[in-house]
Amino acid sequence: MRDIIFAYNKKKGKALAARLKGKKPLFICVVGVTETAKISGISAAGKRPELTDYTPPADVELLLLGKCKCIENVPVTPEGIPTPALITLSALKLGNIAALVVNGGLKVKPQVPFLELGGTSGRDIRTGRAVNKAEEVMRRAKVAGENIAKTADYLVVGESIPGGTTTALGVLLAMGIDAKGKVSSSLPTSPHELKTKIVETGIRAAKIRHGSLRNDPLKAVSCVGDPMLPAFAGLVLGAAGKVPVLMAGGTQMGAVLAIVNFLEPSIVDNLAIGTTRWIVEDETSDLKGIVSQIAKVPILAANLNFGKSKFDGLRAYESRMVKEGVGAGGVCIAAMLKSKGAITCETLLRETEKNYEKLVF
Amino acid sequence: MRDIIFAYNKKKGKALAARLKGKKPLFICVVGVTETAKISGISAAGKRPELTDYTPPADVELLLLGKCKCIENVPVTPEGIPTPALITLSALKLGNIAALVVNGGLKVKPQVPFLELGGTSGRDIRTGRAVNKAEEVMRRAKVAGENIAKTADYLVVGESIPGGTTTALGVLLAMGIDAKGKVSSSLPTSPHELKTKIVETGIRAAKIRHGSLRNDPLKAVSCVGDPMLPAFAGLVLGAAGKVPVLMAGGTQMGAVLAIVNFLEPSIVDNLAIGTTRWIVEDETSDLKGIVSQIAKVPILAANLNFGKSKFDGLRAYESRMVKEGVGAGGVCIAAMLKSKGAITCETLLRETEKNYEKLVF
Repeated sequence: MRDIIFAYNKKKGKALAARLKGKKPLFICVVGVTETAKISGISAAGKRPELTDYTPPADVELLLLGKCKCIENVPVTPEGIPTPALITLSALKLGNIAALVVNGGLKVKPQVPFLELGGTSGRDIRTGRAVNKAEEVMRRAKVAGENIAKTADYLVVGESIPGGTTTALGVLLAMGIDAKGKVSSSLPTSPHELKTKIVETGIRAAKIRHGSLRNDPLKAVSCVGDPMLPAFAGLVLGAAGKVPVLMAGGTQMGAVLAIVNFLEPSIVDNLAIGTTRWIVEDETSDLKGIVSQIAKVPILAANLNFGKSKFDGLRAYESRMVKEGVGAGGVCIAAMLKSKGAITCETLLRETEKNYEKLVF
Repeated sequence: MRDIIFAYNKKKGKALAARLKGKKPLFICVVGVTETAKISGISAAGKRPELTDYTPPADVELLLLGKCKCIENVPVTPEGIPTPALITLSALKLGNIAALVVNGGLKVKPQVPFLELGGTSGRDIRTGRAVNKAEEVMRRAKVAGENIAKTADYLVVGESIPGGTTTALGVLLAMGIDAKGKVSSSLPTSPHELKTKIVETGIRAAKIRHGSLRNDPLKAVSCVGDPMLPAFAGLVLGAAGKVPVLMAGGTQMGAVLAIVNFLEPSIVDNLAIGTTRWIVEDETSDLKGIVSQIAKVPILAANLNFGKSKFDGLRAYESRMVKEGVGAGGVCIAAMLKSKGAITCETLLRETEKNYEKLVF
């Protein structure tokens, strides 16, 4: 299937794709917010930094209702490029795939059903005290993951948290993974220097060092992470012992993988990363370079190409705007696999255009 | 299978049981509280009336963790008879059945993952203003039901809400169903006069009449119902268009059925009620008499008999204490069907005794 790029550990990735063909996935979108997103220049997941609190709830409202409730239109970047949730929505629709929202820690609650884990929104990681109750949230998420794994053939887990690549960098560096200059961004060029500076400030404030939390991922999350991470990791920990889990996202998945790999290395065999072509071809970040330091988990990418779209806002994805998020790449892969190829990157673009026309244009 | 009693619409009940044999269910427990439960003499779902706020969260903690967190021991009646969640837990374990908690409106939040719908706890129905936001909660529950139905072969939906039979009576009477003297109780003998008096007070306060809300089930819930009902009804409305739903409970299921039957009569064909022998043999209530006024939905009952249990607290179920709750009967039926008869009422008693010994004794 040339609609899926096997970008890393090709052999295992192909075997997994073959195994998941025709199977019924459940998509879980883990949402959270961090004050880190409000630092100027960090996130494009919102028209203005202070609006990033609304982006995750609006994203999941879009997925479940086909429209947003907590904001008037769909989330956009400052340039007006629409949220990747538009792609996810299109893939869920075409594939008739169920979606479940999990709240890692939000300020604004979505007006749709969501699984509550008792978490709270994240602080600016420069405080060195980024996340409360990471352990309890992870424990509850694990219980949820164990139960959910009993009903679906496999899980696709994605995220929506503005500023999430900076907090992921925090966890990766605290755990001793060389991720400097490697995390992605919703901006065309990842502001690596700014991100590193923010993380360094947080690491100093938390009185830790690079790599000093190699064996304590929950402390890494608590100091310089975000509230999406323990919820996401807990779901994976609970589910991947029983069913395959496609971790749907970009370089943030590196942080999730590092956490899970330390706590339960035996289940890593049941994991893969599902993302977009825009991530695996991105020259300003290096997902493979992060993942390969942790575990040889296959990376699959939906071979989406919006270059020929009739809408500027979608063609912008080819200028490396946004790139990924809200599980877009993974859900596209799942929809294509479920349909055994009847759904293609071409039909996904057409459906995305239809939804763009209805919701953005 | 003599382990299942086909108590009403036998033919359709048997056909459904045959169809569900070997299939994978998902159990959903809808929880809520109402101040109505604190009226003296109404509910035995707690050691003291003021403790009924803790019973539903404790019940679902028990289901998901195998122990309670928000209270020290498992919920008991004033006489020390343990919650039917003990039976549900045993059936979920033996059957390896997944459980999902849905919050209709609680005061005390459970320390386990739960699906949040934005509802609030219920007022004393004597105010005539029992439930806030019933319509919005039902709408969100419907979205959840639609999604959940895509992953499970069928749903078993149960409830935990102390005082719930009185509020069910309220909705039934407001909708013009002759349910006086017909609703069940966690007490050996249902305090029918007291319940009727409470409902009549609520009906007067709401300025409605018996049957005047025949065509407005949401207003009936808002006036004299409870917050579990719109959540439960919404889940059924969302799911039963796609998969069968076993409504797990006693006479409260009559109120849910009345709501669903009015709003979406076409899906009633996909419904059945799953309960216990203690309900269908109860001479102080009349589930069949309620259901037959609404729709010919089959009633199945787990043929549980605790008469030979070695524990007083379980033998008490044969003295018509507790009878049903937390989906106990329906989940037992689902476990027996899933195992194609390998799980029996006998093995369910033995597993319940094991859990009783560990948690209560």
